[in-house]
Formats: sequence, structure tokens, C-alpha cells
Amino acid sequence: MVKVQHNLIAPRRIRLGMVGGGPGAFVGNIHRHAARLDDQYELVAGALSSDADRNRAFGLSLHIDEDRLYADYRDMAWREAARVDGIDAVAIVVPNHLHFPVACAFLEAGIHVICDKPLTTSVADGLRLRDLAKRMGCLVLLTHNYSGYPMVRAARDLVASGALGEIRSIQVEYAQEWLAEPIEARGNRQAQWRTDPAQAGPAGCLADIGSHAAHLAEYVTGLSPTEVSAELCSFVAGRRLDDHVQLRLRYPKGARGLLWASQVAIGESNNLTLRVFGSNASIRWEQASHHTLRYVRLGQAAQHLSQGMPGVSAGANAAFRLPPGHPEGYIEAFAQLYREFALALRAHRAAKTALPDHLPGIEAGIRSLCLIDAALASDCAGAEWTEVPDPLKLPV
Amino acid sequence: MVKVQHNLIAPRRIRLGMVGGGPGAFVGNIHRHAARLDDQYELVAGALSSDADRNRAFGLSLHIDEDRLYADYRDMAWREAARVDGIDAVAIVVPNHLHFPVACAFLEAGIHVICDKPLTTSVADGLRLRDLAKRMGCLVLLTHNYSGYPMVRAARDLVASGALGEIRSIQVEYAQEWLAEPIEARGNRQAQWRTDPAQAGPAGCLADIGSHAAHLAEYVTGLSPTEVSAELCSFVAGRRLDDHVQLRLRYPKGARGLLWASQVAIGESNNLTLRVFGSNASIRWEQASHHTLRYVRLGQAAQHLSQGMPGVSAGANAAFRLPPGHPEGYIEAFAQLYREFALALRAHRAAKTALPDHLPGIEAGIRSLCLIDAALASDCAGAEWTEVPDPLKLPV
Amino acid sequence: MVKVQHNLIAPRRIRLGMVGGGPGAFVGNIHRHAARLDDQYELVAGALSSDADRNRAFGLSLHIDEDRLYADYRDMAWREAARVDGIDAVAIVVPNHLHFPVACAFLEAGIHVICDKPLTTSVADGLRLRDLAKRMGCLVLLTHNYSGYPMVRAARDLVASGALGEIRSIQVEYAQEWLAEPIEARGNRQAQWRTDPAQAGPAGCLADIGSHAAHLAEYVTGLSPTEVSAELCSFVAGRRLDDHVQLRLRYPKGARGLLWASQVAIGESNNLTLRVFGSNASIRWEQASHHTLRYVRLGQAAQHLSQGMPGVSAGANAAFRLPPGHPEGYIEAFAQLYREFALALRAHRAAKTALPDHLPGIEAGIRSLCLIDAALASDCAGAEWTEVPDPLKLPV
Amino acid sequence: MVKVQHNLIAPRRIRLGMVGGGPGAFVGNIHRHAARLDDQYELVAGALSSDADRNRAFGLSLHIDEDRLYADYRDMAWREAARVDGIDAVAIVVPNHLHFPVACAFLEAGIHVICDKPLTTSVADGLRLRDLAKRMGCLVLLTHNYSGYPMVRAARDLVASGALGEIRSIQVEYAQEWLAEPIEARGNRQAQWRTDPAQAGPAGCLADIGSHAAHLAEYVTGLSPTEVSAELCSFVAGRRLDDHVQLRLRYPKGARGLLWASQVAIGESNNLTLRVFGSNASIRWEQASHHTLRYVRLGQAAQHLSQGMPGVSAGANAAFRLPPGHPEGYIEAFAQLYREFALALRAHRAAKTALPDHLPGIEAGIRSLCLIDAALASDCAGAEWTEVPDPLKLPV
Repeated sequence: MVKVQHNLIAPRRIRLGMVGGGPGAFVGNIHRHAARLDDQYELVAGALSSDADRNRAFGLSLHIDEDRLYADYRDMAWREAARVDGIDAVAIVVPNHLHFPVACAFLEAGIHVICDKPLTTSVADGLRLRDLAKRMGCLVLLTHNYSGYPMVRAARDLVASGALGEIRSIQVEYAQEWLAEPIEARGNRQAQWRTDPAQAGPAGCLADIGSHAAHLAEYVTGLSPTEVSAELCSFVAGRRLDDHVQLRLRYPKGARGLLWASQVAIGESNNLTLRVFGSNASIRWEQASHHTLRYVRLGQAAQHLSQGMPGVSAGANAAFRLPPGHPEGYIEAFAQLYREFALALRAHRAAKTALPDHLPGIEAGIRSLCLIDAALASDCAGAEWTEVPDPLKLPV
Repeated sequence: MVKVQHNLIAPRRIRLGMVGGGPGAFVGNIHRHAARLDDQYELVAGALSSDADRNRAFGLSLHIDEDRLYADYRDMAWREAARVDGIDAVAIVVPNHLHFPVACAFLEAGIHVICDKPLTTSVADGLRLRDLAKRMGCLVLLTHNYSGYPMVRAARDLVASGALGEIRSIQVEYAQEWLAEPIEARGNRQAQWRTDPAQAGPAGCLADIGSHAAHLAEYVTGLSPTEVSAELCSFVAGRRLDDHVQLRLRYPKGARGLLWASQVAIGESNNLTLRVFGSNASIRWEQASHHTLRYVRLGQAAQHLSQGMPGVSAGANAAFRLPPGHPEGYIEAFAQLYREFALALRAHRAAKTALPDHLPGIEAGIRSLCLIDAALASDCAGAEWTEVPDPLKLPV
Repeated sequence: MVKVQHNLIAPRRIRLGMVGGGPGAFVGNIHRHAARLDDQYELVAGALSSDADRNRAFGLSLHIDEDRLYADYRDMAWREAARVDGIDAVAIVVPNHLHFPVACAFLEAGIHVICDKPLTTSVADGLRLRDLAKRMGCLVLLTHNYSGYPMVRAARDLVASGALGEIRSIQVEYAQEWLAEPIEARGNRQAQWRTDPAQAGPAGCLADIGSHAAHLAEYVTGLSPTEVSAELCSFVAGRRLDDHVQLRLRYPKGARGLLWASQVAIGESNNLTLRVFGSNASIRWEQASHHTLRYVRLGQAAQHLSQGMPGVSAGANAAFRLPPGHPEGYIEAFAQLYREFALALRAHRAAKTALPDHLPGIEAGIRSLCLIDAALASDCAGAEWTEVPDPLKLPV
Repeated sequence: MVKVQHNLIAPRRIRLGMVGGGPGAFVGNIHRHAARLDDQYELVAGALSSDADRNRAFGLSLHIDEDRLYADYRDMAWREAARVDGIDAVAIVVPNHLHFPVACAFLEAGIHVICDKPLTTSVADGLRLRDLAKRMGCLVLLTHNYSGYPMVRAARDLVASGALGEIRSIQVEYAQEWLAEPIEARGNRQAQWRTDPAQAGPAGCLADIGSHAAHLAEYVTGLSPTEVSAELCSFVAGRRLDDHVQLRLRYPKGARGLLWASQVAIGESNNLTLRVFGSNASIRWEQASHHTLRYVRLGQAAQHLSQGMPGVSAGANAAFRLPPGHPEGYIEAFAQLYREFALALRAHRAAKTALPDHLPGIEAGIRSLCLIDAALASDCAGAEWTEVPDPLKLPV
């Protein structure tokens, strides 16, 4: 009799666990905010710190029950898998070299994975994860979070619509300043693991932020580079990994790219900027003014597209939480991935659907690793043009 | 024995109720996001809609227990006050004319209040609330949310430090475009109540956004206007309240101000900008680039202050959740008020402390109502300079 | 036989004299650059300084023949009028109180006038000049130089096309910082005469830059205010004229305006900004980014119009000297008035044509003086709404 | 007896001739405006067009005497050299392939040269010109006009002061859109010669605007690249020269550079941007906002330096013609080179002084040609790192 327009029953919140993200960690904190914002998750288990006391204390402060705070992530995976109310998914926010073993443990237990980028530290490990996830029927979200910004969605949809014509050139840069001095030698923990090959893998700046720039370019244009000519530099004395990289990229059908990433660029706190030039039009997006997409058609006035305007796709508009002119930000973009992953998990539960295209996953992660590998090889060979392998053609 | 650095026990979450904020409401949704972001609140009760079915359905979708979804806010106040696990605070997000009766109901039940602005629709009602809150020993937070932006805090602290010298001129504007057409006549609910004197009170644009601009200026400078010369306009045919206002303000010690607010300014989606000019320096803050505070000392290069830089106060830096260069936004600023109100409620519980100075409350709300009253009077009298009464001197 | 597309004979350069503009003068120097840029003038006579030695020395450095350097402007007017190769026009760049007598002397001698603003220091003098110029058949250019910017022309033509719909609100501001301290008491000559009622007239900031703002608004919108409510302030101790003004303006058909001008606004070196809001669209132009006109139609993406784009009038495009993307500036805008006045003088010589509409002249100057008068009166009357008389209806 | 502070006698204007720059030419027109602005030159002779009728008609329209309008530039050089009042200097504004023969003709006649860039189309020709100019005792100005912008001077002086510390990275880009379509096939003359190897030389975009970017970087930092890895692209079907280039550069002491230039970048009308990152600070300068130099020291607020502020050199301030906040532009920057070259010519006449360091001349031109050569070679060799020869070590 009652004509209710709204669901009587809210969908159950996704039960989430977290590995890593102890006190002071940047990324873990972001993931928690992102999970919380739209109320689609509840954080109920964790192996937050390798220090048992810190793990317990910090976990309790997050309202996690004591018996679901685990000293060991493998233990967590098995025991949670065994619970009736066990976690549906785990967020992996540990240093890069641990992404692979931790992801394996949870996938083997049949638990879906949200993994910070890079997926792993080698292409081979990435392929193994792909295989494992497929075998276990699990979804993996890779938090290339810039793809959660509404106007990045608008850019992607605009390019896909053909509005730019044939893509000619892709210019992307990601510049930071926080490693301009050798702070890893002065006790900065975030800097320590990121500049340590044993924890970060063979690439420094390239993997840490260059991979974000590469993913953003790929996400918006739908193009993956086929060749790279790379130069990796390390400007700070004693630094063991690159802190500044300059890549030239070649794409199918003749498009060219330039990717510049630096962590020693004083004056650039966190500047991620993408420009795509086509034969008919261009777009420009900057994280610092992420609400706007500059769009210029040949011979026309520059348009500053934003929420709700003609030219902005329905998908982009749906990714806004607030009315036009009300600033959103990094947390909201990150939360967008979490929100959409919650929908993906529910759809998967109901019908075994795959991760939707607009969410970055294992494939994107492997492509990124292939590019990093090829760039390292090119740099060693004196900037030689080096092929970027296609992960679909890689042996499993 | 265990030397833990972190609290073993997380402080209990504040139990929150909400009145108003049904499906489609803008402000209610913001309050929920703000309450959620830092995990200091749990929403456990509500009278979300005057339509019982909508109330029930929407409340369940928010994970509120059915028996704590109330058809009547008075009922909610009494019954929640009677529960052992009753709400600690209520968020009031109804149209303006209901702020007063709803706030009264909860204050009388001894429940703390988070109220959207304006506090009430008349100075007299504001004074009654002040009296009631004092009598009941309850805290009231008025969500003038712009005061939650970190760089607004930086601006306030910079002015307080005397860096600007004697303040000469305050220029503040808040311009929107969404009421450029008579959308209240075309079924837009947000527009309907905001342009209806019976629901919004005697002022339209002036109360809706002009009050935000006035509060921002006061919050940053510490100055309250003593006289106003006002012009209220209504540009859209058939509109019953002002949609565009221009105020000149006089402050103690000779400072002058200009306040311009419009809801028919096509091209300005939500532009809130404050400039303060002193005898030694000036500052400029815009919501659209809220991470930066432009600061210019006479004869010096313009400085673009942001997080962590010299000249930015500790309080401002503490209000950031992310590292420099990672955009935050409107929700984060709103959440800052919620986060700090949670601290204030815990301190109050422990030691009966008052609302801290940096949080807007009843006093700010009454000053705002006094300004609105004086502006309405000035406009009627042909822009005559009109005294803005000092609420401290008003009879209770 | 020869089919030449180009004029065999260049039109003779306009012979120009100058009164004022001695060494160190700002405005005189600008006029000389403006006259020179397009090679339509030659400076052949002058009374550049009241100091005879300075006049002679400076005049010679400008390549003026010694016998055409005059100690007295009246002497200059008579003697130049008597020469076969006498000046066609004179540029008047003296302090305000001398505009009237100097202009009279040259007009009476039948010499065309280029006069810096304000036209005179009283409406009555302005009306006398109007009469005199008419009687003598002379053209008068008033160098409201902002009207020479190409995108100001684009703005004017866009408004005239009806693209904005009915104009609702005009917001214009002109803010400078150079008088933030009492530099007139420290020997600054530019400041001395501008803050001295005997030389500048009864208004300071209002006449000096407020008049530019008022003219810009009028030039772009075609609307002249009918009523003003004004507040004039003087923030610097000992200053004898206003250094900060806030005007509200009413226009025919209900449009409203706000004009803010200040010379004590630290951090604003020379910020002239105009916004016009209509029922269909808005425009924004700032001198600091004068190549671009922001144009927003309701519900559409913001367009950044510039040279050569659809929506930019032919007249605006014709006012550019360089291809798109090559910055022009203040001198070029000023020179635009000189260039067009040269054309106007040649047309006048041929066919007694009047000053074209797009060049500011005596009428604009008188309207400006009427506004200043009314603003002074309103301020004295406590911001009372005061009628701005229509110069066409003023007795001659 | 008379104590005059000012020169009684203006220095004689430099007598200038021009080769090229007929009706419709962009660069010739700029040179004329630049020569005119500060009144240090008079244009008295020309071979403006290879079409005799156009030459004569256009020359007369520029007030050049008919007998000094020459059909042949060699004829002009000889005959002007023979006149008592012959030209002091010639401005060469012909297509690139003619720079060398025209410059030779005038240098051999002992006439100083102002030459548009590039100096010649081969290093060998450049070296020959160097030798010839030295032998004849003539000065050569190469109009790399961006070095005339005041804040470029400020940047150069700031770097020279050591404020940036050790330079790590130089990022420079010059992007235009005007060749995004094959307009050379549609009759556009400017495009025709610039895309024709016979007239433009072996490089297109690289020589046309890439050379400006390279010079700007060198001018500001004082560093010349020692190695280049280059990619030249041609995106428009049928185009015979590069229209898009991407260079990586290596400098002495380990600094790295990235140079991107494109003439097919839709949406970028004429974007020239330089960023220099050092170990202590960075700077950023963009032509589109050329009045400001962004300067950031590690850990400090970003400073927006402009005219007259602490940190801006005396030389930079001297290059402004107007007070702060009054926009100057491209013509003024170009005119700065002309103004300073007039001073250099007078000093040379008096004391055989050389071209001052802050003016670009033959050496800068040869370095630019060396870089172009090396970039062409690197591109042919698959982006191989290629040495840029040092012109000082090249055989004469």
C-alpha cells in the first residue's frame, strides 16, 4: 500500500580491513577518509602496524574491535575469511615491496583487494596477481585516485566522444618539491622508504608519481605508449633512486607524449597537469584547479567547462557531491573510487560482474609497470627508444 | 607495563540527531558528510522529513534504527532526552523560520544544538535562544562554515597579530547565479523556501548568503559594523525577497566596508571573496582558491601564503587534513566545525567550558540578525546610515 | 599604367603641440609615446614646463625647434595659430585646474584639443568648453584611455548587440596603493597636486581614478547613472581630499551599480575591473589581463574571448596591432585613441564630421563632472540618494 | 650662467634602413613600432619588397623619400654607405635564407646590423658573419626579443645573484596553434616560407620558435646545453618541416633541461613559459603574465615579484616605461632592444665598445644554430644524446 520512492533497506555496508596505515601514515589516513565519506564501508579489522602495541592502540582508536587487530597480515587473511562477518575487502597501504605478498594473502583467502599504487614492483609479480585474482574471482581496485576527479571523467568522456579529433600530443607533468633536500637522511619516514630500492622497488620518483601522471594520461586519452625514450636523474647527493624523470612517449597512430615528473621542483607543491592536443581541439586539466577543464576548439574561444555545463558528461556530473562552485578535493576524488568500488562489489556479488572500465585495476597496474621497466631500460641505454610491452601479450 | 603512545580507548562518538535534511536537501547532506568525515559522530536519530514515509525510508537508508525516526521533532527531543543512549546533539537543517522552534525544543530537553545559519529570523528570537541555551547549559554551534577553511583561520590570526596595521577597508562579496531566473515559480524547492518570506524571513539574498559574507569579514577582522547604508534589490519579476544587495558598512575607529551579495550574478557560481586593507598590509582570500591567502605588505612582493609556510599560524596548519598541494574543500571546512565542536562538547562535559572563540555560535548569529535588521531599515529609509545595535546591549 | 594597391602618398602627419608634460611627468610621457607609436603625429611645439630653462632643455631633447618652445601657453596658442605650419592639435597634460584655461586658449585659436581627464574641475567650465568647441568647430578628445583597449571595445560591442539581455548590475572597481602613505608630505610631486584641492579640484581619488572607472562602465554599457549614493573617505592623516570612495549607482530601467575606487589599497597596484551582469549573460574585464574578456551565458561554459574569436567584434579586432597571444598594453590602448583621433581630424578637415561615438569627448567629460558633483553632494548629505543631472538638459 | 640639468642637445636619431618588411609582414611591422617607440631612430631608407611597385608605394606611406627606396638590397648598401647622411644601421626582416647574404652586403659596406633571428640557416654562415662583423668593426643585434622584457631581466639578474643555488632543471616551452592546419597550402604567406626548407632552412618550428625558447633559457640562466636528445615531429599531412619538437638538454655541472615547442598546439596562442629550478629556489616566467616573476625559496611563501619590489634588479626596473600596474607588452620589450642598441651604437661610435652582454648578438645566434644542428642530428639518430658544439671552439 505504501508508495515509497526510496529503498526501505540500506544496502549493508562493505566490511573493510586495512593492512598498513598506522599512525602518521599519509596514504592509510586518506583511504580511511575515503572509505568513510559516503558511508558505504565500515572498518572492522586491521594489521595497521608491524609494532603490535601501536597496532592495538591505533586500531582501538579507530573503533576496531580488539580481537580483529592482527599482528600478522596472513593471520588476518585466514581468520577473517573464516568469520561469518569477515571482511569483504582489504585496503593495502604498505610500502610498495609488500603490495605483492599482502595482496596474494588476501586474494588466496577470497577477499577483494583495494591496493595503493604501484600494483607491485615488477611486471612478473603483477602478472601473477592478475592470474590469482582471476582464479579466485576477486576484484582488485588500484587507487590511481586522480581518476576519481569529476572533471577528469569529463575529460575522458570528451576525448572518447571524438571532440578532439585525432590526438597528436599528450603533455603531462607531476612536480613536487618535498624531496629537494636529503630528508631521508634526516629521519623523514615517508622519504626513507620511498628512496630505498629495497622497499620502493627499482624506480623512485618515476614509480611514486610518474606512474600517476602516466595513468592520468592513459585514463583520459585511452592511449597506451608503445615506445619510450627516458632520462632518470637523481639531483640530491646520496639519493639512491631517481628524483626527477623526463620521458618522451610514442603512441599508436603517431601521437607523441612528454612526461615530466620531479620531486625536487621547489615551488611546485603538488602540481599535476595534463594537456591533450588533437587535430580539432585541446583540453587542459590541473589538479590545483580541478573543478575546471579548459577546452579549446580550433578558432573558438577557450571554454572553461565545469559541473553541469553543456559538454560535461553525465558521468562527470554524477561524480560531484556538491552544487557548482562548492570546492571539493582530493579526499572526495579518492572517495569516488571507494564509492564506485562498493557498487562494483555489490554487482559482483549479485552477478559476478567485472570491474567497470572507469575504475583502475590490475590491467592498468601492469601497464604502468611495463612502462617503468621500459623507461629504466631506455635510460640505461642512453635514451634509446625502447618498446613498452603490451601486457595482454605477455606470458602468464 | 605496556608503554603505549596512543589512547587505548577511542573517545565515544558523539550521538547525533538531525531535524530536516530529507532526500534532495542540500544542507542536510553537507551536515551528514561533515559529521562523518572525521568519525567523531554517529547519526542515530532523525526527523528528516515532514512526510512520514519519506522520513522512514530515508532514515533507514542512512542506517538509523526505525524506532528513532520521528514524525515530530518535539517528540524526538523528549524521547531522545529520556533515553540512556539518547543523542548528545542535534543538527537543525530546516528552513529558516523553523530554526527557532526546533532549537527551543532541543535546548529545553538539554540537548546541544548545531544550527544552520541564520540563527533565527528575528533578533528577538535570537536573544530568547541565547537566554535558553545559557539557562540549560547547552552549547550551540552556528554553521558559518567558511570559518572552517584553514586559510581563513590563517587570515584571522594574521590580522590578530597586527600585521595589517590599522584596518582601513573591508571588501567582501558573495555572488551566485542560481536565482537569475524565476526558478521558484518552476518548482525548484531550494528556491521556493528561500524566496518565501514566510519560510525564509524578511530578507532573501541578504540572509542567505550576505550573512555568510558578513560573518566571514567579522571572523577574520574581529570587527563588527556599527552603521550600515543598504540597498536591497530584487531583479527577477515576481520575486518576493531581495536577490541582490549592496551594503556600505562603518566600523569602530573609522574602518569602512563594502558588502555585495547577489544570487542573480550570471557567471559567478559561488564566488565568496574577502579583501582586508590595512595601513601596513592587505590580505585577499577567495573560496575558489581557498588554499592560498594573498598577503601584501607595503612595498613588498605579493606573497601567496599556504599550508606550512612562515606567516601561517599553527591553528591554520592544524586545520589541514592533507599535505600541501592536495586540494581540500567545502566538506572539509564544514567538517572542521564538526570536529572542533566534538572537542568542545567533550570539554564541556568534563568541565562546563564554553564554546571556544574560533567557533561561531549564538552571539555571532545575533550580530548577524542585527545587521540584517539595520540593513532592511536603511534600505526603507533611502540608504540612510542606520545604526547596527550591539547585541550585548540589547535587553534580554 | 601602374596598378598600385597602396597609397602613393602618406597622409601628412598631424602637427602636435603639448602643454605640460615636462621632465618626470607621467601623463605627458604617455601622450608622447601614444602619439609616436603609429607615426600619425609629429611633436613640433610645446610649453612643457613653467620653468623656462627646463622647458627649453627638455623641448630640445624631444627634437622640438627652439623657436617653438613657449614659456606661455597663450603665447603658444596665438603664435602657432598664426603659422602656416602651425600645430593642428594640442595635447593638454597639466594639472586638472589648468585644463579649462589652456583648452580655452587653444580652442579660441581654432586648434583641436586632446585633453587629459577630467575635462575641467566644474560642470560649469565643462559646459563653457562645450559651447566654445562647438562655436570654433574644433574637435576635443578626452583621453579616457581605457576605452582604447581592444577587448573593452569587444565588451562594448557585445553589450550593444544585446547578448547580455537586460542589464541588471554593474560592478566596477579601480584600486591603487600608491597613496597609502602621506607621500604628498614627503615631496612626491605627483601626489602633491593630486591631493591639493587648488590644483586637483574638489575631488581626489574620485576624480583621478573613480572617473576612469565611471567612464569605463558607461563606455561599455551605454548607460549613465541617474542617481548616486556616495561615501568619500580620507584614510591618510592630513590628506585634504578623498583617497577612497564607495558609490552606489542607479541607472534607467532599474539597473544598479557599485563603484569602488581607492588609492590606499595596499596590494593593488593598478587594478581596474569591470563586471556587467545582465538577464542572459555577464562579462568581466580586468586591466591586468586585458587581452581576455570573460563572457558567460546562463547555463553555458565560461568563454574567454580574445582576439579573432567568434563573438569578438570587427572593431575590437581592428584595434589590435599584433597577432593573438602577443601582449599589448597601456601605451597601445592610449595610442589607439591617438590613431583614431588622427583619422577623425582628417575626416573633419575633409567634411566637418564630428568626433565618432567610440571616442570619448566633451560630452563624456561633462557627464563625469556631473557624477562627481552629485557624489560630493550625496556624501555631504549622509549618503542620500542624489540625482545626477543630464548634461543635455543643463543650461549652456 | 644657466644651470640646466638636462641635455640641451638631443642626441641625433639613428638613421635606419630596412630590408624586407613589406605590406602585411608581421616582423617588419614590429621592428618599425619598436624603432619608433622611444624616438631614437628615423627610418630613412628601405628595400621593403622585391616587388618594385609595392616597395615604392609602401615606402612612401612610411614617409621614406622616394630616392631612398631601393629595388635591390646590395644597391641600397652601396649607395647608403656612400651618402653623407647614409643609414647608420639596417634592420633585416627577410625570410631566414636571406639573412646571410643581406647581412653580408651591409656589413661589407660598414653598416651596423639589426637582424631577426635565426642569424643564418647554417653554423658555417654564422661563423662567416662573425668574422666579417669583427673585421668591419660593426655591431650586430639579433632580435631575440624576449630578452627585452623587464622581468626576464629580473630573472637573469636573480639567477646571476646565486639566489637559486645550483641549477638543477630548466623547463621551457613555447607553444602556438596557428599551424594546426595546413594553411601553407591555403595561401597563407607567413606559413608558406616558414614551412619551406628552401626559405626557412632545415628546421621549422625548432628554428622559428624553439630557438626563442632556447635563447630565453640561456639568457636567464647563463647556461648553454652541451648535449641534446631530440625528437622532431610533423603532425600536419604534407608539411615539409617539423611543427612540434621535444628536446632533452644536458648542461655543464649536471643540470637538465626540457624544451618543448609546437605550432600545432590548439588552445595555446603564443605561450612561452620558462621555469628554472635550483637547489635553493625556483623561478617561473610566462609571457602571458610577463609583468610578474614567480619566485619561491624552499620552505617560503611564493613571491610574485614585479616592478620596484625588493628582489627586482635595478636593470629590470630601468626597463619599464610605465609605473607599476600599467601593462606593457611585446612592442615595449622589442623596443627595449632597439633603445639599448641605440645606446650601444653611440658608445661604439665614441669608443669602439662592443655589444653589451645583455643584448643578444652573433654569438647567441651561432650557439642557437649549433643547437639546431645537433638536434636535427639527434633526431635522425633515434634520439641519441648528441654533443652541442661550443662555437668558441669552432674553426673560423
